[in-house]
Amino acid sequence: MNLLLLEPHEVGPDGRVPLSGSRATHLIGVLGVVPGQAVRVGVVDGPRGTGTVLSTGAGTVELACVFEESTPDRPRVDLLLAAPRPKVMRRLWAQLASLGVGRIIITNAEKVERPYFDTHVLTPECYRPLLIEGLQQARDSRLPAVSIHRRFRILIEDELDGLCEGSLRLVADPSATASARETLVGNRVRRVLLAVGPEGGWNSFELGLLAAHGFAGIGMGPRTLRTDTACLALLALVHDAIAQRL
Amino acid sequence: MNLLLLEPHEVGPDGRVPLSGSRATHLIGVLGVVPGQAVRVGVVDGPRGTGTVLSTGAGTVELACVFEESTPDRPRVDLLLAAPRPKVMRRLWAQLASLGVGRIIITNAEKVERPYFDTHVLTPECYRPLLIEGLQQARDSRLPAVSIHRRFRILIEDELDGLCEGSLRLVADPSATASARETLVGNRVRRVLLAVGPEGGWNSFELGLLAAHGFAGIGMGPRTLRTDTACLALLALVHDAIAQRL
Repeated sequence: MNLLLLEPHEVGPDGRVPLSGSRATHLIGVLGVVPGQAVRVGVVDGPRGTGTVLSTGAGTVELACVFEESTPDRPRVDLLLAAPRPKVMRRLWAQLASLGVGRIIITNAEKVERPYFDTHVLTPECYRPLLIEGLQQARDSRLPAVSIHRRFRILIEDELDGLCEGSLRLVADPSATASARETLVGNRVRRVLLAVGPEGGWNSFELGLLAAHGFAGIGMGPRTLRTDTACLALLALVHDAIAQRL
Repeated sequence: MNLLLLEPHEVGPDGRVPLSGSRATHLIGVLGVVPGQAVRVGVVDGPRGTGTVLSTGAGTVELACVFEESTPDRPRVDLLLAAPRPKVMRRLWAQLASLGVGRIIITNAEKVERPYFDTHVLTPECYRPLLIEGLQQARDSRLPAVSIHRRFRILIEDELDGLCEGSLRLVADPSATASARETLVGNRVRRVLLAVGPEGGWNSFELGLLAAHGFAGIGMGPRTLRTDTACLALLALVHDAIAQRL
């Protein structure tokens, strides 16, 4: 944990935060904090700052927090992801949050198996703590927005503009020759929406619908990657290309 | 499985390959092959080619294989990795092979816990099938060379030149400001050796020794990533930067 994330309601008006439970245990047991010590803190979807340890007790820590004036910018990449196997998705949440995504849009596709949607991993009870874990790793406080869409066509035709207005739209496509960098260099758009298909790929209807709604194919060379590996690799490449442009 | 990898001794002089076991079961049960059908094949550390199904039986498949003249080039990136937790390492093998590495050098470091070395995941019996799985995913036949080094200083001072002669040496360092791309652009070196430290980072002795042996620090911006995520992201970035140069 490189930053301790707090919920807004946990922070008193004077910046005092009484902690118990796993975060207090981590501060005492793993970081070995003592009164007077400063730790990096942040408020979920709020500013980051510094928490000074006032006291430690049996499984409790009291912090006095001072926050920066501004909240970090939302990461400029959003992800549209065909629901992967639950075991893979469970692992991805924290990794996506640590690499930085503004929004995670989980969708259906022909090659997504139906039970993938009826799973605990797509519930906020499961994914929110995992996203928080990824943010704490990356020292970010901006929680990715998550939405789950069982109907691909309605998502693309009716809902996507409202979710990601004005983003440059890219779809990972093994047959595409342009790379993320080549597509992004010289492009002045503020945000990128990256679509990653299911393990067996999008079908031709799905690829056609994405193309008709402005998604440009990007490839990663001749190697075919598993969805989760492709997802992480492409997020890194898109972030790097965006940073290069600035 | 996007390519079926065969061991050299499995291929008869006439290109005939009698298969049984899990690969035959996969061909019959998952891919549903029938006689006359062609599948992508490759020989471990040898050429790729096409296998035509001659016959299928109860859990057996016979292939007639024709191979290309040349063996694919070894991926031009090697990885020097401080041993991660066994659970993480088990997951990484296939992902590293699919992204493409010529050599995987596992090393000790102060913040590597001792039991990490006495684990099944660092034995060929465990990692070879996982590497093969990653190669079959990525349609590659070049098996990464793997070596395990318990003594960091001896590795860096005495052994590394023999393992990775003439490579450009990079070390992932959160405090570095240069990116992989910036460091690689304009550089004409043929191979890259990328070092990724343990979860808690290299200590100052280790970083100093790496610097003294030619490793240049590269960063990925302000986000701190877990070792495994950083590893995958940086491999993607280094491969992209190498491809850009050509």
